[in-house]
Amino acid sequence: MKYLFRNDYSFGAHPKVMDAVCAVNLEGNWGYGDDGHTARAKERIRQVCGLPEAMVEFLVGGTQTNVVACAFLLKPWQAAICPDSGHLNGHEVGAFEATGHKILPVPADAQGKIAPVDLVPVLERHQDPHLTEPKLVYISNATENGAVYTKAELTALYAFCREHGLYLFVDGARLGAALTSEANDLTLPEFARLCDAFYIGGTKNGAMFGEALVITRPELADGFFRMKKRMGAVMEKGWIQGVTFQTLFTDDLYFNMARHANQMAKRLQEGLKAKGWPLWVESPTNQVFVIAPNDKKPILDEVCDYEDWCPYDETHTVVRFVTCFHTAQADVDGLLAALPDLN
Amino acid sequence: MKYLFRNDYSFGAHPKVMDAVCAVNLEGNWGYGDDGHTARAKERIRQVCGLPEAMVEFLVGGTQTNVVACAFLLKPWQAAICPDSGHLNGHEVGAFEATGHKILPVPADAQGKIAPVDLVPVLERHQDPHLTEPKLVYISNATENGAVYTKAELTALYAFCREHGLYLFVDGARLGAALTSEANDLTLPEFARLCDAFYIGGTKNGAMFGEALVITRPELADGFFRMKKRMGAVMEKGWIQGVTFQTLFTDDLYFNMARHANQMAKRLQEGLKAKGWPLWVESPTNQVFVIAPNDKKPILDEVCDYEDWCPYDETHTVVRFVTCFHTAQADVDGLLAALPDLN
Amino acid sequence: MKYLFRNDYSFGAHPKVMDAVCAVNLEGNWGYGDDGHTARAKERIRQVCGLPEAMVEFLVGGTQTNVVACAFLLKPWQAAICPDSGHLNGHEVGAFEATGHKILPVPADAQGKIAPVDLVPVLERHQDPHLTEPKLVYISNATENGAVYTKAELTALYAFCREHGLYLFVDGARLGAALTSEANDLTLPEFARLCDAFYIGGTKNGAMFGEALVITRPELADGFFRMKKRMGAVMEKGWIQGVTFQTLFTDDLYFNMARHANQMAKRLQEGLKAKGWPLWVESPTNQVFVIAPNDKKPILDEVCDYEDWCPYDETHTVVRFVTCFHTAQADVDGLLAALPDLN
Amino acid sequence: MKYLFRNDYSFGAHPKVMDAVCAVNLEGNWGYGDDGHTARAKERIRQVCGLPEAMVEFLVGGTQTNVVACAFLLKPWQAAICPDSGHLNGHEVGAFEATGHKILPVPADAQGKIAPVDLVPVLERHQDPHLTEPKLVYISNATENGAVYTKAELTALYAFCREHGLYLFVDGARLGAALTSEANDLTLPEFARLCDAFYIGGTKNGAMFGEALVITRPELADGFFRMKKRMGAVMEKGWIQGVTFQTLFTDDLYFNMARHANQMAKRLQEGLKAKGWPLWVESPTNQVFVIAPNDKKPILDEVCDYEDWCPYDETHTVVRFVTCFHTAQADVDGLLAALPDLN
Repeated sequence: MKYLFRNDYSFGAHPKVMDAVCAVNLEGNWGYGDDGHTARAKERIRQVCGLPEAMVEFLVGGTQTNVVACAFLLKPWQAAICPDSGHLNGHEVGAFEATGHKILPVPADAQGKIAPVDLVPVLERHQDPHLTEPKLVYISNATENGAVYTKAELTALYAFCREHGLYLFVDGARLGAALTSEANDLTLPEFARLCDAFYIGGTKNGAMFGEALVITRPELADGFFRMKKRMGAVMEKGWIQGVTFQTLFTDDLYFNMARHANQMAKRLQEGLKAKGWPLWVESPTNQVFVIAPNDKKPILDEVCDYEDWCPYDETHTVVRFVTCFHTAQADVDGLLAALPDLN
Repeated sequence: MKYLFRNDYSFGAHPKVMDAVCAVNLEGNWGYGDDGHTARAKERIRQVCGLPEAMVEFLVGGTQTNVVACAFLLKPWQAAICPDSGHLNGHEVGAFEATGHKILPVPADAQGKIAPVDLVPVLERHQDPHLTEPKLVYISNATENGAVYTKAELTALYAFCREHGLYLFVDGARLGAALTSEANDLTLPEFARLCDAFYIGGTKNGAMFGEALVITRPELADGFFRMKKRMGAVMEKGWIQGVTFQTLFTDDLYFNMARHANQMAKRLQEGLKAKGWPLWVESPTNQVFVIAPNDKKPILDEVCDYEDWCPYDETHTVVRFVTCFHTAQADVDGLLAALPDLN
Repeated sequence: MKYLFRNDYSFGAHPKVMDAVCAVNLEGNWGYGDDGHTARAKERIRQVCGLPEAMVEFLVGGTQTNVVACAFLLKPWQAAICPDSGHLNGHEVGAFEATGHKILPVPADAQGKIAPVDLVPVLERHQDPHLTEPKLVYISNATENGAVYTKAELTALYAFCREHGLYLFVDGARLGAALTSEANDLTLPEFARLCDAFYIGGTKNGAMFGEALVITRPELADGFFRMKKRMGAVMEKGWIQGVTFQTLFTDDLYFNMARHANQMAKRLQEGLKAKGWPLWVESPTNQVFVIAPNDKKPILDEVCDYEDWCPYDETHTVVRFVTCFHTAQADVDGLLAALPDLN
Repeated sequence: MKYLFRNDYSFGAHPKVMDAVCAVNLEGNWGYGDDGHTARAKERIRQVCGLPEAMVEFLVGGTQTNVVACAFLLKPWQAAICPDSGHLNGHEVGAFEATGHKILPVPADAQGKIAPVDLVPVLERHQDPHLTEPKLVYISNATENGAVYTKAELTALYAFCREHGLYLFVDGARLGAALTSEANDLTLPEFARLCDAFYIGGTKNGAMFGEALVITRPELADGFFRMKKRMGAVMEKGWIQGVTFQTLFTDDLYFNMARHANQMAKRLQEGLKAKGWPLWVESPTNQVFVIAPNDKKPILDEVCDYEDWCPYDETHTVVRFVTCFHTAQADVDGLLAALPDLN
């Protein structure tokens, strides 16, 4: 049996979530999210975000949420600025372009982050009406490389966006990992006030599936349900998402799971460093990136599931290990024990 | 507590499905459907369809499946012919048009069915290259009005389609109800050979969610996974769909549930007739359509959940009752007992 | 040599237009409409419309203008209401659906017109958020059947639209014919105040090509140039459109040509009636619709170009004759002389 | 009066083209390109291309042609590979993405060209079905930077494309300049056999407007007219395009004009070098790129129309001068005389 570090969706839901879904399975509910569980889950999310007027809607997965939300906010000739390493740009088979919008990639730093200075040349160049109008900035927190935005960074970015009429959308597939990271200095309510829309990722943190999209400024939310329906993103048995998020935000389950995943990742990262495996980036969240010698990859393949991230050089590959709510300390220690010392 | 006849997605999954999903919840699986459960479920569906080469892919819900499948089969200038009462045309917030395709509605008969004769004028008119090219025929089985296509009808329709280079796509949201109806004379393998693509609806028959799309002619299937991903329709924890459909097609659970729903609907339909409630259409499946006097609707509202289907006349409304795997005989009898005798 | 009554784009431009285009051909101008001719033509159109703040932009053809303008005004989940006989619905190969929007056809009267009463049931039905949001009403003036909206009709329709938050867009491919019709009681400034956007068709009234889109409420116009460019609708040598419309609106050329076409059509219509050819509709503009006996069609084919409009019955076909600025009285009289008397 | 070197669409049509268009202006023709002039022009283009079976269709402008043609060839999940400097990627307000397709930019060399070696990593990376499928390679000849593909280069690129199932599309907005360049070693028939589709640009070489799209492999062309109509790209008075291209390909007018433009550009480029103005790239076609000192730009602004291409450094800007069929030797010499000597 291999150790599973391939991603944070290798396991299903936290048992509390499964129990809650099973408990309501046959109680009978209205469809399409018009049920009490969903209403209460939305209310709970508004509460934990400190945004009593925000729009909350549940979707199924990350790509779907990114695409529906970003396309919802844009007019046809408007484009999304995105770090070149961003998920919207890279890994979604053109799902966003399928809605008719161009992505304007900007080079991200080694952590996968972007800052106002990166946006300035895009805005200047796109004064030209023969080019798209940049109107939305897409970032991820945690980023694709496991980094988190600090309060200062996000404040600066959002201030710039507001000043230039840009929407700021945060992909929160790993928002739990971000907000429970040692590198984080933002509360959820603080975070929520520093963007126009974001989602709280359930799939990668203890749900069977489900993402909670929050549009923080209610004046932007008009018409969203129809947009969601039009994109085939409305679940008939929507209460499953409602019950899921009710449970995730009861007794701090969501953040406790994320914190656990981060701790397991830290233990793994420290252990790998101690054994002489060089890090590609130092990650404060639940993704660990290591520069693996290609001649050691057969050992990796034998003992664990992981992912090839990108080539590093002729003889090395960047590989990624991901932890989650279900990663046990014994798994981390077992993996470390099974790997050779490179010192 | 009301009797719940609003639709066939008022309840979650059959307990056997829930148990199976729970059983694998933490076993660890690869994402995106690249797991063994999904592979076995696909194989099982090919087997029950008698189509060893067919493509099977799982999607989340009905609108999504209709849209992804139909858009997949068409070139940009091609259109889908659809009964005017068809779900693709009516109830999907333009989800299909959102993929850039026009729907060519044709008048359906009182049962919601169409026949080759209905297609002829569309094809003639659309010889004109200033009009879209009709290329796909969308039907539902069971139809929106609860009817089922007979072997003769479907054979004639598909022969016409093949002769004229049209794809035939069957929305099988209620395929279980259709194939277990007393009005049905088709086996699943016979049915599967009479169309180019169809889906086996899970959401409306005992799954938490999930539809199994079958493209019966493998030469048409190339590229489908990317199309699905592009439409945000790939689940990260895809094994849930796999396990669900494995269970549905074990011990005939899928058809047993559908048969039960049909029996409950028949009992309800007979009971309503006996009490003098006129039927709008005689339905052989799990939807019952009644012409309700508007002055009796407060009683209906009090005792059950149901749906207003369409206005009938100044003083009557067509209402719909739907049964499902979880509808108990006591529910049917209780509802009937609670309704006034109109004789 | 046949008489050409097939359509109003069988001939090129009025000689004054050609002369004007030729006169500036080699003078050197900035591209993309950033030239003085275009600026002056826009200003002239604002002036003749009595709308000093309106947005005016030039496009190439009718389908393009309809599609760009309507898609510009709508959000993705919004739909256009359109008479079932409307050009947007029928004859554009799904060009509007290609922008991702659904058309909601409503039955038009025999003249091709719609009224507020036709819109009410659409709005009621589409309260349901599982359906598209109707947001724009598309009509043509003159209609596809040659009729014109009266001041009272258009006032009522626009008042209804404003009251219900609907945009009113008027396809003015034959606006000249409409506003110079004997059935018309609207001036151009009056007309322009009774809709949110319309276009003044050049192609069908004396231009080589070109349509002048007017968005009457400037607050709706923001971003239009980018939308136009995104749809491939910006001409590099845009001054040709500018010079064309300058000429069309000098010395009343545009309306004089349209008036002439209407007079020729009236002469033809009266002549046909006198010879016992039954009209399909009585048209006050430049299209004449006749119920032709199928056994007389060979004669028609021999003497003139015309168009089959639609089947009438087993032995008759509705055919259409169209006049234009270049139709001579001798052509009308010649055609009439060549046709058999059906009395 | 300034010297006009801003672009190759500052002037209208060559007098022979204008004369030809005027000559047929009132002769009466069928619409939508169903006329004899258009038929003969298509036949003539097939002939000069040496491709008797090729599909030829006329469109209005470059962006429209690029977008319609590339979208026509692709399935929804397929993407176009494009030099990062390519027009499709940069200057079309997301017109291509508006059709739902992603662009995969690859770094072009200093001349704006790409080679098979640039495509390899894209194809490797996109084996992953979670990414788009690269299916079409877009290049321009002449490139955006004025360079031309040699026979060896194009042969290698097309062989690679055929081997990997990629379509090769060549934007020929400046095809005349390319094929008459001193750097060119391809005849039009040779060129035409080295790609799947291309267009012969009329707008930038002596037409009022109009591009002739050639799909060299007729088996790829099925359905194109409907696609063109769906994109609003069918002209009602299509014979104008027909007559234009008939004239362009009579007595070698098209290539004679292009050769003249190239000669004028060469004279300008040589003259600028002689006066110490450094070239940004050495261009063998009708675009000249110079690194202009910013403190000399007021002089440039005073004496000529030109275009800022891109910033070079703190004190210099790359500027572009473009010649065309109407550029006179006196214009070149006048401009050179008016510019300061930087030696």
